[in-house]
Amino acid sequence: MGRVTQRRKVLKLSLAGPPRRKEDIMAAEEPLEIRLGRKPFSVTMRTPGDDFDLVAGFLVSEGVVWQPEQLGAMRFCAGEDEEGRQTYNVIETQLAPGVPLPDTSLERHVYTSSSCGICGTASIDAVTKNSHFGLEPAPEGGGVALETLLGLPDQLRRRQQVFERTGGVHAAGLFTFDGELLCLREDVGRHNAVDKVIGWGLREGRLPLRGTVLQVSGRASFELVQKAYLAGIPVLSAVSAPSSLAVELAEETGLTLAGFSRGETINVYSHPKRVRAGIGISV
Amino acid sequence: MGRVTQRRKVLKLSLAGPPRRKEDIMAAEEPLEIRLGRKPFSVTMRTPGDDFDLVAGFLVSEGVVWQPEQLGAMRFCAGEDEEGRQTYNVIETQLAPGVPLPDTSLERHVYTSSSCGICGTASIDAVTKNSHFGLEPAPEGGGVALETLLGLPDQLRRRQQVFERTGGVHAAGLFTFDGELLCLREDVGRHNAVDKVIGWGLREGRLPLRGTVLQVSGRASFELVQKAYLAGIPVLSAVSAPSSLAVELAEETGLTLAGFSRGETINVYSHPKRVRAGIGISV
Repeated sequence: MGRVTQRRKVLKLSLAGPPRRKEDIMAAEEPLEIRLGRKPFSVTMRTPGDDFDLVAGFLVSEGVVWQPEQLGAMRFCAGEDEEGRQTYNVIETQLAPGVPLPDTSLERHVYTSSSCGICGTASIDAVTKNSHFGLEPAPEGGGVALETLLGLPDQLRRRQQVFERTGGVHAAGLFTFDGELLCLREDVGRHNAVDKVIGWGLREGRLPLRGTVLQVSGRASFELVQKAYLAGIPVLSAVSAPSSLAVELAEETGLTLAGFSRGETINVYSHPKRVRAGIGISV
Repeated sequence: MGRVTQRRKVLKLSLAGPPRRKEDIMAAEEPLEIRLGRKPFSVTMRTPGDDFDLVAGFLVSEGVVWQPEQLGAMRFCAGEDEEGRQTYNVIETQLAPGVPLPDTSLERHVYTSSSCGICGTASIDAVTKNSHFGLEPAPEGGGVALETLLGLPDQLRRRQQVFERTGGVHAAGLFTFDGELLCLREDVGRHNAVDKVIGWGLREGRLPLRGTVLQVSGRASFELVQKAYLAGIPVLSAVSAPSSLAVELAEETGLTLAGFSRGETINVYSHPKRVRAGIGISV
């Protein structure tokens, strides 16, 4: 895995015995600077790996691109750290001719409002305005079976390679409605893991990601719902709790948001029609 | 608690029985726009409450202020959402005369580098350059007792009010070396919870926060170590794993970083001298 994990000495203290020195494996974290058309666009702290996907997914989440043709060349800048090693921490991205550069005069947050009345409603409006796909209506009796949905956190955990060894990363997995894994990514940043999955989708020409479930290892925030929605993912399922604004955005955009996915039970906060509970009975 | 939590209808699906509708309490999330001298500086998604502390702590973490006198007046902008309610989501902050406005021509990240060689080392250099306090050297035989340190996550959990009801927020608690709680804050964003604690410290005139432990409910990232360091907090303890760059920054700045605090055992990643293990024996 190379730069994805790092080994370090750690002192393990215990009430039951003497201190022990041991070697610990931890999730790597490095800054990544994203440049758009030679100008700095954003810096994120991330776990190295799948960096082109991360950049692509980030640009989808920001509403900058939504088709693979809109992305021009991406390359790591030549650049060295103090010890003369290439850092692989700066990516320069071109947009295709005709694709407008995003307005970077303000912060990167798409929900920034110039009025004083910034609120959840304004934020939701900004996100829906940036959507190029929208979501298909929830199908009658279609969607994902409850048992399949409940099994996704286990699948995610079983296939997580970095977490297994470090306990220190978030994971995001994209599954078909039948529970088949399409793409799994891990990162110290929960948003990065999701951006890497979505960037994979963009670069594979699969957007909008219809008929899929995005399973995340932690909580569901507003921004995660935003990312799923802009990529056309109809179902977002979290192991832990959603926030109030995450639920509002899901409700508004037609996305199925589930949380507290705990093996036997799950909470569905919006548009439950995409979940088939019981034997063929749509809730 | 008002706007800190929200009630919503949720559909609980189970393999063992029929679907049930129930009412769920969830952590509120709303955007907060921070303006500095009338210009937009940043937007963060946060749980409403202690917003002045959040702004103050954010400015400490960005290296903009480090003394309460440097902060001028803070006020909520008058502003209404579509239904004519004041949103309390925009705060205008003045800096005291002579305090320079931060450079906002780039992104807000202090570790942004204009060279191609952006790396962990450059990020660490940027943080240490922004420090106005530094940390006192770890005392021989002083610091926090192992038993006290191991008890902090329990104290945090027992006193968390929002998590209790929603399962959906991060917490940060500031304790003395004797385990006395000074300040506890909860937020959907882990960084916000820490900023709220540090902003409380600034506004109370307590910076640098010497002789304290910051206990956080989740993982320890680079940014959390940065925040603790800039506020002069010598010990950061996390319930979960740290990242590699968090450990490097802690090592470099002299901060004691602990993780996997699990009741009976804890890992110490840097500067263990501030932890007293065994009967009076400093490790």
